[in-house]
Amino acid sequence: MVSSPFLSLRMEALRDVLRENKLEAYLLTNLSDVYYFTDFKTEGYYAFIGLQDAWLFVPSLLFQQTKAHTSGFECIQGTFFPSLQKVTKAHKIKKIGFDPDQLDYSLGAALKKMGFIPKRGLVTQLRAVKDALELDRMRRANHLAALGADFVKKRLKPGRTERSAAADLAHFFNKKSDGVAFDLIIAAGPHSSHPHHVTSDYKMKAGEPVICDIGAMVEGYRSDLTRTFPLGRISPSFQRVFRIVEKAQNEGICRIKPGVTAGSVDEAARNVIKKHGFGKEFVHSTGHGVGIDIHEHPRLGPGAKDKLKAGMVITVEPGIYIPGRFGVRIEDTLLVTPFGSEILTR
Amino acid sequence: MVSSPFLSLRMEALRDVLRENKLEAYLLTNLSDVYYFTDFKTEGYYAFIGLQDAWLFVPSLLFQQTKAHTSGFECIQGTFFPSLQKVTKAHKIKKIGFDPDQLDYSLGAALKKMGFIPKRGLVTQLRAVKDALELDRMRRANHLAALGADFVKKRLKPGRTERSAAADLAHFFNKKSDGVAFDLIIAAGPHSSHPHHVTSDYKMKAGEPVICDIGAMVEGYRSDLTRTFPLGRISPSFQRVFRIVEKAQNEGICRIKPGVTAGSVDEAARNVIKKHGFGKEFVHSTGHGVGIDIHEHPRLGPGAKDKLKAGMVITVEPGIYIPGRFGVRIEDTLLVTPFGSEILTR
Repeated sequence: MVSSPFLSLRMEALRDVLRENKLEAYLLTNLSDVYYFTDFKTEGYYAFIGLQDAWLFVPSLLFQQTKAHTSGFECIQGTFFPSLQKVTKAHKIKKIGFDPDQLDYSLGAALKKMGFIPKRGLVTQLRAVKDALELDRMRRANHLAALGADFVKKRLKPGRTERSAAADLAHFFNKKSDGVAFDLIIAAGPHSSHPHHVTSDYKMKAGEPVICDIGAMVEGYRSDLTRTFPLGRISPSFQRVFRIVEKAQNEGICRIKPGVTAGSVDEAARNVIKKHGFGKEFVHSTGHGVGIDIHEHPRLGPGAKDKLKAGMVITVEPGIYIPGRFGVRIEDTLLVTPFGSEILTR
Repeated sequence: MVSSPFLSLRMEALRDVLRENKLEAYLLTNLSDVYYFTDFKTEGYYAFIGLQDAWLFVPSLLFQQTKAHTSGFECIQGTFFPSLQKVTKAHKIKKIGFDPDQLDYSLGAALKKMGFIPKRGLVTQLRAVKDALELDRMRRANHLAALGADFVKKRLKPGRTERSAAADLAHFFNKKSDGVAFDLIIAAGPHSSHPHHVTSDYKMKAGEPVICDIGAMVEGYRSDLTRTFPLGRISPSFQRVFRIVEKAQNEGICRIKPGVTAGSVDEAARNVIKKHGFGKEFVHSTGHGVGIDIHEHPRLGPGAKDKLKAGMVITVEPGIYIPGRFGVRIEDTLLVTPFGSEILTR
């Protein structure tokens, strides 16, 4: 289950970052950050990585399981805080960093009092560029999302509820993978004008669009794909908006290559929409990184300065939302390649 | 959709708590806390409740939706931090509390710098006692969990994978409700010895037990129920352990009434298990509150001093886990009534 060469490389990469930041250890309090280094995904245990050794702080409830499913760490059973103090004292570890965005204020304040140093984003940066093991999982998760889009498209019918279509699609994903990547969005008719609609008992109608924002999880890695399907014959105004969003997505995708800023991909997509007079109706960023979490570094929003790197996996998902009437969003997930990009959601 | 009399009462209850704590306003940064006051559940927006007025800070992405689905709040569109500063300045609000356990260290530190006061658990305490609207949802969610237990029991068969049984049950819940309350646990054979097993492709075998830890979500409220089903004829040692856990659960349940401590319920259940020599194999608390979140106040663990109150909804779920061999857990969700308790998971 654990592909330890990859895990060792990830740990060595973090140690390099620690040395650059003059840190002797880093405390990992975020479920996804811990999973990245252990390949064992469950809530409730923390990782502590020093320059030589590494530990997991595990409550009794999870101890047997965690010991069985991890390697390269010493598992310490018991209450987190005393265990942490014991290890830092016994190994004389002094300069310890933690991510201030990945733990609650109470814990962060207690660590700060102990002399721990807030250093945001060290693991976030590492996780943004996927290694071969991660890419394999991302490819499978995104391929499954594409199969899911075909599956759900056939099940969109006038009179059917959003909920029932979403339930069938979730079943499709649950049988074939670790499950859904997020609460699947099936937004029909006027609901399509809410970018983050909560799937409801609304019955689909002929002549209305249905936005399907879907994804599966394969070995802990998530996929993300959106299609806007028209149900039967649909208005010319919808068709016009659809073509604008399609063009915007295309322009965004064409801009992707290593070295360009995340903001410039947003700009390329947004300019198409602005030019057609729908700038105010595009109410979110053009995209985001995706991996263990559904939203990861980098954010592809206005002015984002982060440079794209080969190996990043990002979404491009412009949308136009006409309040009370309808919306269109088209989203694919792409791998940044050395010379451009590759669409994974197919 | 919104039952505003209940929401107004909840807000008035919080205002009473604010006055007791000499606060003029409270910032709500936790999804479930915000939902409690708005009845609109979606990630990404915050609530700010003063003694007279109340506001929601909403990103553009969610603005139309939030405005349409909430009442009793002024919705403010835009970036959170500047919006918050504007409101506190315009309304001259000074003594503002926030929950240090419900936001990240970065945000907490920024608020602290602005003079905000960390005050934990004000909403947690309110949420622990359910009102009639909440109880209606909890009853339906827990009844659905009981139906789910019957549904999945019929689908546990030698040769079937844990994953396929879990997928069918999730489909059952997804069609009838907002979905699953948490990642459903189907833990067969030796996996049953891991209290928080991650459902896998393991194939069930005759003569082995299967732990099913399941729950559904009805209008944002979660249910929680565990059954341990033997697959065909099963060993006397399993039967013995099963009867001990059953007895422990019974003893715990019999102890429940308003005024007793949460710890005494744990003690009653734990003593049965200890007496039979399995104290070390009961590696978790006896139960927890449940509602909008799957784990809520109070915790029913050793020494917990919180007193039970009528209207609390709690689980009683002792377990015995023999590493590498098998485990047994039996869990029901109960309402604390004026004179005892009522099992909701039936």
